[in-house]
Amino acid sequence: MKKATVVGAGLVGSLWAVYLSKRGYKVDVFEARPDMRKASLSAGRSINLALSDRGWKALEKVGLKEQIHEVAIPMHRRVMHAVDGSLTYQPYGKEGQAIYSVSRGGLNQVLMNLAEKEGNVNIHFEQKCQSVDLEKGSATFVNRDTKEKITSAEGLLFGTDGAFSAVRKTMQRTDRFTYSQEYIEHGYKELSILPNPDGSHKIEKNALHIWPRGEFMLIALPNMDGSFTCTLFHPYGGEVGFDALDTDEKVVSFFKNTFPDAYELMPNLLEDWHENPTSSLVIIRCFPWTKNGKVALLGDASHAIVPFYGQGMNAGFEDCTVFDEILDETNEDWPEAMKRYEISRKPNGDAIADLAMRNFVEMRDLTGDAEFLLRKKIERKFSTLHPEKWLPLYSMVTFSHIPYAEAKKEGERQDAIMAKIMSIPNIEERWEDDEIMEKMLELS
Amino acid sequence: MKKATVVGAGLVGSLWAVYLSKRGYKVDVFEARPDMRKASLSAGRSINLALSDRGWKALEKVGLKEQIHEVAIPMHRRVMHAVDGSLTYQPYGKEGQAIYSVSRGGLNQVLMNLAEKEGNVNIHFEQKCQSVDLEKGSATFVNRDTKEKITSAEGLLFGTDGAFSAVRKTMQRTDRFTYSQEYIEHGYKELSILPNPDGSHKIEKNALHIWPRGEFMLIALPNMDGSFTCTLFHPYGGEVGFDALDTDEKVVSFFKNTFPDAYELMPNLLEDWHENPTSSLVIIRCFPWTKNGKVALLGDASHAIVPFYGQGMNAGFEDCTVFDEILDETNEDWPEAMKRYEISRKPNGDAIADLAMRNFVEMRDLTGDAEFLLRKKIERKFSTLHPEKWLPLYSMVTFSHIPYAEAKKEGERQDAIMAKIMSIPNIEERWEDDEIMEKMLELS
Repeated sequence: MKKATVVGAGLVGSLWAVYLSKRGYKVDVFEARPDMRKASLSAGRSINLALSDRGWKALEKVGLKEQIHEVAIPMHRRVMHAVDGSLTYQPYGKEGQAIYSVSRGGLNQVLMNLAEKEGNVNIHFEQKCQSVDLEKGSATFVNRDTKEKITSAEGLLFGTDGAFSAVRKTMQRTDRFTYSQEYIEHGYKELSILPNPDGSHKIEKNALHIWPRGEFMLIALPNMDGSFTCTLFHPYGGEVGFDALDTDEKVVSFFKNTFPDAYELMPNLLEDWHENPTSSLVIIRCFPWTKNGKVALLGDASHAIVPFYGQGMNAGFEDCTVFDEILDETNEDWPEAMKRYEISRKPNGDAIADLAMRNFVEMRDLTGDAEFLLRKKIERKFSTLHPEKWLPLYSMVTFSHIPYAEAKKEGERQDAIMAKIMSIPNIEERWEDDEIMEKMLELS
Repeated sequence: MKKATVVGAGLVGSLWAVYLSKRGYKVDVFEARPDMRKASLSAGRSINLALSDRGWKALEKVGLKEQIHEVAIPMHRRVMHAVDGSLTYQPYGKEGQAIYSVSRGGLNQVLMNLAEKEGNVNIHFEQKCQSVDLEKGSATFVNRDTKEKITSAEGLLFGTDGAFSAVRKTMQRTDRFTYSQEYIEHGYKELSILPNPDGSHKIEKNALHIWPRGEFMLIALPNMDGSFTCTLFHPYGGEVGFDALDTDEKVVSFFKNTFPDAYELMPNLLEDWHENPTSSLVIIRCFPWTKNGKVALLGDASHAIVPFYGQGMNAGFEDCTVFDEILDETNEDWPEAMKRYEISRKPNGDAIADLAMRNFVEMRDLTGDAEFLLRKKIERKFSTLHPEKWLPLYSMVTFSHIPYAEAKKEGERQDAIMAKIMSIPNIEERWEDDEIMEKMLELS
């Protein structure tokens, strides 16, 4: 039987193992951490995930869509919370479209179960990758407990071991390997809004809540148990940055003043604040993504991005779909398929990295801005009238399979058009006039 | 006696050891390679260096200028070699200004001798840096021969260990360390033009020779022994790239057609071609450059750049001058000095990285371009008439101590002005008219 090794049993690694298994491979997955299905979850570093069309497609292709649907909560719109407590709404897409809140840990457990159910997938836990042989396409792992070493079968090795990938680190030492790790000014801390005593959600369940405040923002995504996982994205430095919020009083005062309605819902604020770490956010880019026709990186290992477009997991899952398609096209000629995979995916990894950073500005700043919301309304109206002419950037990224790089380019074209429309005098009063739609049609 | 450790006895490490010694430190320098003064030099990876004002200032400050002058050859101008063998000339600066050709190995040996002469500097060879303790400001080294381990004194540790710095690699693993390594499309190979039988130079001695050919270029810098060190900068890929030049016939044919006059001077071409490796070119950026007020990076370890502005060594030497000035200003308050050093130097490291890449385009392409040469003539004329208004970018970088970032900004201002001047109809006929100088005065 054909053999393959996957390093890392995270979301992408577990899913890719299923893909390989469906192709007839006996797959060994090596994971450095203990089995999260047995150990208690280390919370506080999750950032709840938003599963959208690209992710669903990858799951559907290997028959996992139904099972995941059971643990996913649809979010149809953004709910923006102003300082005075007033709410504004912004649908994510058309009627019936939604992004889905899933818990990283929960989803990962389901994917591991489904991978193991395949029969040909074995997940080995507490196996830390110690060295990688790029020539042979194998790796050596050390058992964290017994210190015993195992070397994987030679041939095909996949690094799905995340932003700090051990497989990539070995590739980094080869000549002409381009690499960058860029930490942004902001870090994050996980907080929570607990359920009502009856288990219901304290705020609108089927929505992603945002408290946009310019330099920082709080978001909340619903969980199945009635709670919300909240994430504060916040600069390290500055007057009220993480470093400056060094007493309980300062934390409470900051929340009371900045997120008053959220503060009321978070009696557990200080407990969460102390329990959960402040974590950094990194953007990782590299090239090549494959080596010797035997080793390939997928997911965060090749393109770690900031979480602001909800696309990190979706992009990683799309790596699987695309790679799988290329394997069909090439009759599983791995060296050829790996070349095509990295050449086709790299521009898309770069594009979603840029888009995610740009969406941060939108989320923390513009979602509280009247002109921005008006722009979105005009776009939506035009898109409804002329769907063949205009798919908003957010929809291209979230509800389509248009390659990210193309979506980004189309978004830039739309920006230029909308800049002209928004500069029309009194646009805020005239936006519903027919001539505005005509002007857009002319410009498109 | 105060103690300090320097990792790497290259150009910057040897010089920085002298600076520390002058400040009253007992300095241990650990170098991974054998003592090049005893072993035979491994040639072929040198790229002869061009020492210019920033470098000279750093040497002068610790009294090393005279000794280095003895092994440096002034180059007053660029000599451009066209395919038909015709020559064009471009002075580097004003009358009397020059950049100086020095051999990397020769200069390094002189600097090591001078450092050891200080009395307080000990250079330990074949000591590979195995681990770095960023908290304590010390490092552990393994002797390549005996495998014996030494740990340096705690307190102050300086990483001058080049583009692949072991000290930086440890810093890279700390949270929020931004880092990038970017390989350019081009690599390089060292070649040579040997002296005449009487020991004289075969082509103009006091010049930097360039064979600009668009996608590739050959340069030659004079040596004391009558030879020239030549470097071919050349893409890896493409029809005549390094990878395609895979037989002697192809190499010879490429040189005959592309650099006919140089080919005549290089009967040893194929010998050099096979003996010398094809080496890659990398740009490295990172931040921070210091850690815990105890560890600091200088030179290529913090900002490796491409060699096209002749500023790699000069920038590293300027790190020493600037750091030393800051130590005076802060009364040797190291934590404070390290903060100021990295904040003041980082933008300049980034600027010279950008400028060096830009100069590649200029050297390989524009130096063979009539409009570009005209632009330079006009600039030079204006600069002579109004030296207070206009110092050409090349002169700011090479013959001044204006911070690189400021020079870059001023260069951009000049570009905008020259774009207007060059778009004047018939500028090639009218450039010596008074009105052109008046127009420039008006725009400046």
